[in-house]
Amino acid sequence: MKAANLAPLKKDFVTALRIIAREGLSDAFAHLSARVGGGEMLFMPRKSPALVKASELFVVDFDKAVPQSAVHQAVYKARPDAGAVFHFHSERVILLTVVGETVRPMHNYSAIFYEGVPVFEGAGQVETPERAADIAKLLGSSKAVLLRGHGAVVVGRTVREAAILALYLEESARLQAEAMKLGKPIYLDSAAAEKVAKRTFKPASTERAWEHYSAGVKA
Amino acid sequence: MKAANLAPLKKDFVTALRIIAREGLSDAFAHLSARVGGGEMLFMPRKSPALVKASELFVVDFDKAVPQSAVHQAVYKARPDAGAVFHFHSERVILLTVVGETVRPMHNYSAIFYEGVPVFEGAGQVETPERAADIAKLLGSSKAVLLRGHGAVVVGRTVREAAILALYLEESARLQAEAMKLGKPIYLDSAAAEKVAKRTFKPASTERAWEHYSAGVKA
Amino acid sequence: MKAANLAPLKKDFVTALRIIAREGLSDAFAHLSARVGGGEMLFMPRKSPALVKASELFVVDFDKAVPQSAVHQAVYKARPDAGAVFHFHSERVILLTVVGETVRPMHNYSAIFYEGVPVFEGAGQVETPERAADIAKLLGSSKAVLLRGHGAVVVGRTVREAAILALYLEESARLQAEAMKLGKPIYLDSAAAEKVAKRTFKPASTERAWEHYSAGVKA
Amino acid sequence: MKAANLAPLKKDFVTALRIIAREGLSDAFAHLSARVGGGEMLFMPRKSPALVKASELFVVDFDKAVPQSAVHQAVYKARPDAGAVFHFHSERVILLTVVGETVRPMHNYSAIFYEGVPVFEGAGQVETPERAADIAKLLGSSKAVLLRGHGAVVVGRTVREAAILALYLEESARLQAEAMKLGKPIYLDSAAAEKVAKRTFKPASTERAWEHYSAGVKA
Repeated sequence: MKAANLAPLKKDFVTALRIIAREGLSDAFAHLSARVGGGEMLFMPRKSPALVKASELFVVDFDKAVPQSAVHQAVYKARPDAGAVFHFHSERVILLTVVGETVRPMHNYSAIFYEGVPVFEGAGQVETPERAADIAKLLGSSKAVLLRGHGAVVVGRTVREAAILALYLEESARLQAEAMKLGKPIYLDSAAAEKVAKRTFKPASTERAWEHYSAGVKA
Repeated sequence: MKAANLAPLKKDFVTALRIIAREGLSDAFAHLSARVGGGEMLFMPRKSPALVKASELFVVDFDKAVPQSAVHQAVYKARPDAGAVFHFHSERVILLTVVGETVRPMHNYSAIFYEGVPVFEGAGQVETPERAADIAKLLGSSKAVLLRGHGAVVVGRTVREAAILALYLEESARLQAEAMKLGKPIYLDSAAAEKVAKRTFKPASTERAWEHYSAGVKA
Repeated sequence: MKAANLAPLKKDFVTALRIIAREGLSDAFAHLSARVGGGEMLFMPRKSPALVKASELFVVDFDKAVPQSAVHQAVYKARPDAGAVFHFHSERVILLTVVGETVRPMHNYSAIFYEGVPVFEGAGQVETPERAADIAKLLGSSKAVLLRGHGAVVVGRTVREAAILALYLEESARLQAEAMKLGKPIYLDSAAAEKVAKRTFKPASTERAWEHYSAGVKA
Repeated sequence: MKAANLAPLKKDFVTALRIIAREGLSDAFAHLSARVGGGEMLFMPRKSPALVKASELFVVDFDKAVPQSAVHQAVYKARPDAGAVFHFHSERVILLTVVGETVRPMHNYSAIFYEGVPVFEGAGQVETPERAADIAKLLGSSKAVLLRGHGAVVVGRTVREAAILALYLEESARLQAEAMKLGKPIYLDSAAAEKVAKRTFKPASTERAWEHYSAGVKA
């Protein structure tokens, strides 16, 4: 893919980072990537999502190790439908993992994750391709996987979808934690959740949400 | 009603949407409507409350289905006193519904809902006129009804009142949740609550609150 | 007291209102007053603390009923040391009252209220001079009294002190609520709390806090 | 050390104060210091961290008592590796201390404090060199010590590190409190925590975090 063709993707990429930063899903650490075809992905340097510039993004193939790239590359190899991967460390997602819980379907947004959100139990950072492959395997066909004491990895068909799913995941984790504090959460079974997801999680809804969150963002 | 006459209503309508967005009661999804007489309502397109413009509002009659209109139309048909209907998905309101609770009178604002706040148990979105009619029936003569795992519908005599009631409902839900965490909430009985409501919820108070929340809003 | 002499007091008064609004202790409803000598107080109209202007403030004597004035007048009559009275409805203060609790000394700020913070059990608004006198009597020599399901009244020697005490009271209520959620709060006994208060609550500290909170405020 | 040489340190110092203020770790009260060699430290006047100017900073030796200096001086004497000391009163840190808890390793940031975070049980302010020496002794070789009902003291090799560690400590305290509310936190043992810390807490990571938090700060 030629550099000129990447300009719109880079704009979405940086906008997604700014949204994530503004909505409180990251501090200085979070990494987004986007598949660009030909076994390659657009990736970012080790820099705060609030500060990365489009001109600093770069393309790297799935077999070349660069800092923080392993989990992204492993997911693209395992999931042909993955167009973007977002790895972040938001507070409520981490909270659920350190008490042995995960996001479960209860409302319109959490129902979007009806395939289940597995939790990878290894603590600490992702460093090796082998560990990254284990995470991708655990992810399976889900939209997200949590990493205990660490954060989450979300998979979208596009950068926009990955960003919006990250917001929905964190909101769902917040609801899950609050509901657990109050007593007996009423969960949706898998079939009911899938039904809700089919009505709630449509491309047009993602576009509406993207329009909302990207308003006023400087990318 | 002629278009020229709708200008002040449209201004209040958009202001109400901005207030709701700024106060955190909606993300990209929430829908407001206002009765304009003659079996018609002013309604909004599928767009974030933070972004909708007055020029995008439109009038639709109570029997024509447009996206997201069903619950609004059903409420106007059932409630001649309804001048505005607001449907939104705020966090604490949803929280109560997923643990089988609702807003109950405890303080000056929650007492305003002394008629009770019923909870509609069907999960997911409102799609059919039949389902919308069921929700309107459950609402009865109350100021608000909650939808499990989904959100709330609030009814006001005016757009301003509906917006302020939405804020009071979410604050009341937050207080209810926090009080439940701490142990034994002291509820007001219905008569005491009604007495408080009569002193607290007056048109002049709504105007004072509207003046407060609309300060600095661009509509 | 001549109007010209009131200018500095009016500036502090409006600054205090803005601080309270910005720090989240009030929505559209809260009332501040300041003793001006001769059985009179400076008072405000029924308007949001975020919007009241210095030119709208007025002087009223302790026996003339104007809207919302009763509790202020009752406190000045009962407490010769009261230079300012602030009545507000912040979330955590209300929370404690609806579960039968009050602020208790645990840390440097809550210790300032070592005389105890009584709770007035009558729900709803303060309307009559008799009821206001009951509240003033319950207040006794304390710095604050809570009103169940309603809010708090704080007494300071100056407007600045009343504003800072209001902030400390709400922060203390938040800490109290959070500590109760976690299990067994370690309270300070009255003597230990008084000792902490003597070191923590000095005029110079109030001035430092005032300088901090009033920075950037438009009054 | 000559005054001219202190300019970069003063810039970092004031930037650190602004970060702490903006991130909600202090109100008007918090004190930072930085070792400047020769048994001396750079220190600040009694003024809000949001308002102190570089021109107000001053150098004082470890044996001269100035207001609020005791704990800083005691730590420098006890810890040759301490380049900066930060004493603050953030909400979640205080919360843990008033329920008899402390920060414990659970996630990437809390693991950084794998040496343990002791709690000093004496309530109230630090006033005497003797009491300050007791706190420094309790600190031992840890990165932080908590003071019951009061706040925390954090030690960094540099001003930047002390500021970032303060942010990590407060976030860790928030996670600890939330996890305790939900039931059974899964703690990391000391060896696992140290392993995580070695990968997470590197000078390059501190620089990345500093770049993130200092963006847009006026110092």
